[in-house]
Amino acid sequence: MASPLHAGRGDRSVRIRCHELAPRIGDLAHNCRLIADAIVEAMAADVQLLVLPELATSGYHLTAEEGQACGLSPDAAVFRQWARLLSSEAVLVVGYCEPDGPHLYNSAAVITASGILHSYRKTHLWDTEKTIFTPGNNPPPVIDTPVGRLGVLICYDLEFPEMPRQLALRGADLIAVPTNWPHVDRPPEEHPAEVVQAMAAGRASSVVIACCDRYGAERGTTWTEGTTVIGADGWPIGRKDLERHLDAAVELSDGRRRISPRNDVHHDRRPELYL
Amino acid sequence: MASPLHAGRGDRSVRIRCHELAPRIGDLAHNCRLIADAIVEAMAADVQLLVLPELATSGYHLTAEEGQACGLSPDAAVFRQWARLLSSEAVLVVGYCEPDGPHLYNSAAVITASGILHSYRKTHLWDTEKTIFTPGNNPPPVIDTPVGRLGVLICYDLEFPEMPRQLALRGADLIAVPTNWPHVDRPPEEHPAEVVQAMAAGRASSVVIACCDRYGAERGTTWTEGTTVIGADGWPIGRKDLERHLDAAVELSDGRRRISPRNDVHHDRRPELYL
Repeated sequence: MASPLHAGRGDRSVRIRCHELAPRIGDLAHNCRLIADAIVEAMAADVQLLVLPELATSGYHLTAEEGQACGLSPDAAVFRQWARLLSSEAVLVVGYCEPDGPHLYNSAAVITASGILHSYRKTHLWDTEKTIFTPGNNPPPVIDTPVGRLGVLICYDLEFPEMPRQLALRGADLIAVPTNWPHVDRPPEEHPAEVVQAMAAGRASSVVIACCDRYGAERGTTWTEGTTVIGADGWPIGRKDLERHLDAAVELSDGRRRISPRNDVHHDRRPELYL
Repeated sequence: MASPLHAGRGDRSVRIRCHELAPRIGDLAHNCRLIADAIVEAMAADVQLLVLPELATSGYHLTAEEGQACGLSPDAAVFRQWARLLSSEAVLVVGYCEPDGPHLYNSAAVITASGILHSYRKTHLWDTEKTIFTPGNNPPPVIDTPVGRLGVLICYDLEFPEMPRQLALRGADLIAVPTNWPHVDRPPEEHPAEVVQAMAAGRASSVVIACCDRYGAERGTTWTEGTTVIGADGWPIGRKDLERHLDAAVELSDGRRRISPRNDVHHDRRPELYL
């Protein structure tokens, strides 16, 4: 984990970084600088997939007015600026606040050196998000990228087992999940509940899952700081360093779905028996 | 957890016991005695739901001939004998080997004082089971019982997120899972992978899940001994005692699906967006 890993698609190994940031609520310019700095750092470390938090451009506990004021359209110039910072084989997934007329969406952009490949609107809204944001009405994407077939979910989306499952069945090699996980108590020695969900989803479908949380108290909320990368075997990989990078080199081996000589977690499904 | 808990359906609290047994391969008479003893002990402790392992009557690594020789039909007298040992409000779920003509099924019976309520045939077969058993072709059951609406899965069934999900959506309050989990290595400090799946499934659908593993080396296999009861909040409850009982008093509160003031894990689903 210590040395940079140079891997093309041929050997199906990908160097992922999740970088926890602490956006300032409503301060678009500041937050965009944080993001640009994170990209530059990641490219210097030969990261291939950089995942940043949900609503990284805006902060979380927005009012509708603040969301409109600090929102971004998918064709905003800043996305092209970030694209120019990316190396030719790198992919960035970052959460942002997206106004569209009177509506606000909690969105995530998938960006390469060529620009935005896709923007996804969160479809499962958490608690007070329901008072501010409109839920997206399109399924989560699976996109061909330089790091493989990439699925995207945002935070609470991941807690619906149907969501990571469908991405894996649609061919995702890995799933990027920008999150803002509010801190809740849990039993000592346990992973955060959201990480347990990611571990189970990764193993059930043999898919890599990279969740990037945030930090920094905001309007009375603190965060789980539960950033995690789950391998296709369901176990967490790597640890955050002092600068809140979690770097993980993951294997996307094509044979990974076989979990015994006679079992393949996709082919063993019995969809005719499911609800 | 120390004192027996007397709970009817009114207060929606249920005392569950999972009791790990070590059946002898092919020794039906011995294994049936183990099971009868476990029932008597459980009734003396006021257990309301007793879950015993997968293939508890037969052992696991059977040949087809052994499976035929030590198999049971759902109308076998021994099930009525066990029924007579149960108190009027108690439920037993136990795995057994079920021949039907040339076929063998890996089955689980749900038994009350009135007799067998249901027998379920495992639908997802693990590894060498595929060379011995025929998979069931009926979905897993949700049954009204004295302890509430009870779903049943067997071992590998639980690793398909669609399975516990459909039981919860069909109204199951709790899911009993007879298992035989072969030991596999895992990272230190982690729960067994199967327990992680159960935790995630319990929390995702707000449903109680009680998994009863076995112990005792058999034809080269040792077992995870991972018996666990997961509360509707996704966290494990209770610890095994020295006699391999795991006793857990669980709450089946009707409001349990609400996980924030504005979120209900069933109603928040967006099935129109799922594969």
